[in-house]
Amino acid sequence: MEGIRFDTSPSAWRHWVLAVEGGVATLALNVQEDGGLVPGYALKLNSYDLAVDIELADAIQRLRFSHPEVHALVVTSRRERMFSAGANIFMLAASAHPFKVNFCKFTNETRLALEEMSAESGIRTLAALNGTASGGGYELALACDQILLVDDGAAAVSLPEVPLLGVLPGTGGLTRLVDKRKVRRDRADFFATTPEGVKGKRAAEWRLVDEAVPRSEFAARVRERAAALARTSDRPAHGPGVELEPLAPERSADALAYRWVRLAIDREKRVATLTVRAPDGGEPDDPQAFLAAGSRAWAIAAWRELDDALLHLRFDELEAGVVLLRTAGDPEAVLAVDRSLDRHRRHWLVREVLLLQKRVLKRLDLTARTFFALIEPGSAFAGSLLELAFAADRSYMLAGGKAPATIALSALNHGALPTGSGLSRLEARFLGDPARLRAALAHRGPFDAAAAHEAGLVTFAPDDLDWEEEVRLAIEERAAMSPDALTGLEANLRFPGPETLETKIFGRLSAWQNWIFVRPNASGEKGALALYGKAGQRPELDRRRT
Amino acid sequence: MEGIRFDTSPSAWRHWVLAVEGGVATLALNVQEDGGLVPGYALKLNSYDLAVDIELADAIQRLRFSHPEVHALVVTSRRERMFSAGANIFMLAASAHPFKVNFCKFTNETRLALEEMSAESGIRTLAALNGTASGGGYELALACDQILLVDDGAAAVSLPEVPLLGVLPGTGGLTRLVDKRKVRRDRADFFATTPEGVKGKRAAEWRLVDEAVPRSEFAARVRERAAALARTSDRPAHGPGVELEPLAPERSADALAYRWVRLAIDREKRVATLTVRAPDGGEPDDPQAFLAAGSRAWAIAAWRELDDALLHLRFDELEAGVVLLRTAGDPEAVLAVDRSLDRHRRHWLVREVLLLQKRVLKRLDLTARTFFALIEPGSAFAGSLLELAFAADRSYMLAGGKAPATIALSALNHGALPTGSGLSRLEARFLGDPARLRAALAHRGPFDAAAAHEAGLVTFAPDDLDWEEEVRLAIEERAAMSPDALTGLEANLRFPGPETLETKIFGRLSAWQNWIFVRPNASGEKGALALYGKAGQRPELDRRRT
Repeated sequence: MEGIRFDTSPSAWRHWVLAVEGGVATLALNVQEDGGLVPGYALKLNSYDLAVDIELADAIQRLRFSHPEVHALVVTSRRERMFSAGANIFMLAASAHPFKVNFCKFTNETRLALEEMSAESGIRTLAALNGTASGGGYELALACDQILLVDDGAAAVSLPEVPLLGVLPGTGGLTRLVDKRKVRRDRADFFATTPEGVKGKRAAEWRLVDEAVPRSEFAARVRERAAALARTSDRPAHGPGVELEPLAPERSADALAYRWVRLAIDREKRVATLTVRAPDGGEPDDPQAFLAAGSRAWAIAAWRELDDALLHLRFDELEAGVVLLRTAGDPEAVLAVDRSLDRHRRHWLVREVLLLQKRVLKRLDLTARTFFALIEPGSAFAGSLLELAFAADRSYMLAGGKAPATIALSALNHGALPTGSGLSRLEARFLGDPARLRAALAHRGPFDAAAAHEAGLVTFAPDDLDWEEEVRLAIEERAAMSPDALTGLEANLRFPGPETLETKIFGRLSAWQNWIFVRPNASGEKGALALYGKAGQRPELDRRRT
Repeated sequence: MEGIRFDTSPSAWRHWVLAVEGGVATLALNVQEDGGLVPGYALKLNSYDLAVDIELADAIQRLRFSHPEVHALVVTSRRERMFSAGANIFMLAASAHPFKVNFCKFTNETRLALEEMSAESGIRTLAALNGTASGGGYELALACDQILLVDDGAAAVSLPEVPLLGVLPGTGGLTRLVDKRKVRRDRADFFATTPEGVKGKRAAEWRLVDEAVPRSEFAARVRERAAALARTSDRPAHGPGVELEPLAPERSADALAYRWVRLAIDREKRVATLTVRAPDGGEPDDPQAFLAAGSRAWAIAAWRELDDALLHLRFDELEAGVVLLRTAGDPEAVLAVDRSLDRHRRHWLVREVLLLQKRVLKRLDLTARTFFALIEPGSAFAGSLLELAFAADRSYMLAGGKAPATIALSALNHGALPTGSGLSRLEARFLGDPARLRAALAHRGPFDAAAAHEAGLVTFAPDDLDWEEEVRLAIEERAAMSPDALTGLEANLRFPGPETLETKIFGRLSAWQNWIFVRPNASGEKGALALYGKAGQRPELDRRRT
């Protein structure tokens, strides 16, 4: 199984330059035109593709784990007078629909990780726009806490997607304009339909940026604001941090085998199996031990592996429509790790470990595949790993047998690993039945299948007479259904209850964007996206409004 | 201008039978197979098309206005053992994409009107499922306060759209399952992928219905529950109510002219102009006068006309992408009506008038066209009519002149006419600036253009030197953009702030459905929707998950 590599490291970065000084990190975009993920387009004007975004995601992750001394991050550009032109249009126009959707999803997750890093990890963020920020370039700035724009009569912020390309800003821009920065919606309408964007004082007056600063004062103002942001952080004054070692799974034709995680694909059946092993014991149980174990600790390694496997599934195994979630090993070992994490959750590194697990589980929530959790004897659905079953569309638990399967809750099921809506998976599960939620959380010890079913924690609990047939049929039926309808179904059922910026971006903005992407007005031969940059050719549009 | 007629009356109904007895109305579905909107499909098994839904919308509206003595509504079927098979599949498969989208939108609005009728008007609702309710049939039941299902070993509720048709339940079903009825999401997943649905006790245990009742006890239990619901109503004990008279606009090639509203289309420019005239004076100012004036009162007539014009635009003028909102007449006359409505808002009829205006404005919010409000001398953007400008994507107000344009707020701008999010349009406008909201609401008297612009109530206020050019360019540019991208843009910017069941249905569920509808897996020649019911042909699906 080959495919896109999401695991990278600073020595391999080509597009970003990281510098750390006095508690402030500066990440400068310096896109190499020939450094795209695949040949066929040049990444001009600091425009980006997935290769650039994979490095950004890596940089954010490493700042969190390896640089506890960093308290603020400045995102800027190495280019003169150009922050970023956004996602590369020729790359987008040449991409198949599934890639477009997965690209947008990944970049959205990365920007949300930037926001979470500020809110939860205490690394505040400042976009220092030393030149024009267009489209995805401006959307990256919108994901920062503050935006400074150089006021030189030329530099602008803009979202030209609608007027120039016939698609939406795809990285949360519209949602962040009105919901995060609370730009008045009629101004947002004008802004997002004006290709040249807005500059200087008007940009500040309309809340599109926090301040427009003359070029002569720009660097000093950036330093000043970054220092002020850094002072609000609760991160430690110095390291050591934890290096994130390469994942390096073993690759065979039908499987990716990591240390703790295994992804196996049955292409004929269009079914994947994702198995996570519990730790073997001997895991760190206090912050010093976590620092010493570094990224080899199960609580980091297994979750990084799961994250990587999910991305591989999304981008490179498009037809594997049903994913069976399995676990193996000793549930007690998972519960022991959970106890250590919960006890030390205020330590910066332990906090990062929990936030990593939270992000990986959200990645699963947002993966457009059917997940069925299979809970059998020998499995380890406990605590943090039990969240996999709660994230699944359904769970099947085998009842009875000699050493019956059990599941068990830990402190981490009480809200430490929330979904994008802010609810825990158990809260979302028992939205209509708070008494059942309280009962489940109050229960001590493991649940066997009958107890788990009675408590509402699993969907079905067939015995061994029915198990094989019931599970096989459920998988076959699911794999036969329309992939599009299932994606829509799951996107609606997985997010009951409150909506947040995050769920709005994925549930509303991305849903509309997916529709627009497949319409001939964008992607048809004469569509606006397809014809962009082709001199003399104007798109031919179906003018019917729907 | 010809097209679909949305204005109907009980004597013209073919598909519903209404009976009123002792405070309880019973609306029984009795679809005439040959009564479809257009030829080409038979409405078998109480399946419905737009013609059936137009009558349902009319029935709901008339119950509210004409039957104050009705305190509860039972929705049931005249057929034996079949409540409704849902939206007619052959109709859907034969429809163009814009019609599908507009059909779903209208049916969703009608179901939300049912819910609003219970919550706001005090007419509680009970779905009495005397037989199977499939797809849209069950979704109609989900829009009622309570659902009773006959327990006869055969009657089931089901959402077979995903497994059988490769599309989503299109009328809010998924959202209502998990968000309204709080069905556990794994059970909702099983239910919505199981074509035969769920019956009897399991349906009740899973919260899909409130109670499953043996056939022998069904009628008595329906009466009992309906009577109990009726007792919670605050409607008067008896009439008189208000008859809703026919609208009967004058139709010419390019215009629909109602008494107070005029819709004119410039097809070459793809621009519509929607003009609402203020009352001439002499409008009712207390409940007795409203009862006497009936549906000829401006506060009812103008808004019913506007509603009808919006529906006409949606279904029959698909290419009119930009709609100019204009008003004319005496703003003081609007303010006088608003004062009467506000003063008597607790009277059942006045309450209905306000709820009508609220629904019409929401219809505008949800109409996938660009709205620009043009505020010029001679206009009447005051109070309830000023909500049109607040609903618009942008507003332009002409500054200066001999008798300068003004706008004015009334009590009705303070929250009496909220958007689907629950916020008033002013609250949504000033989400980031509550001080400005308070200042605007505290202001007494009219605003001229400079004051309105300063207060943030209009987008732009050009003077007469710039007006013509600025407005013309804005319209031309807008009309040239991709209709799809504009629909997506507006759907994202118009709903800042909190989400509700209603905004989730239109923003999340419908967006996904629109995407699924245009994908070849549903609507292609070999798609699941296109091949439904064709014996021996199975859909050929693109198996890539996105």
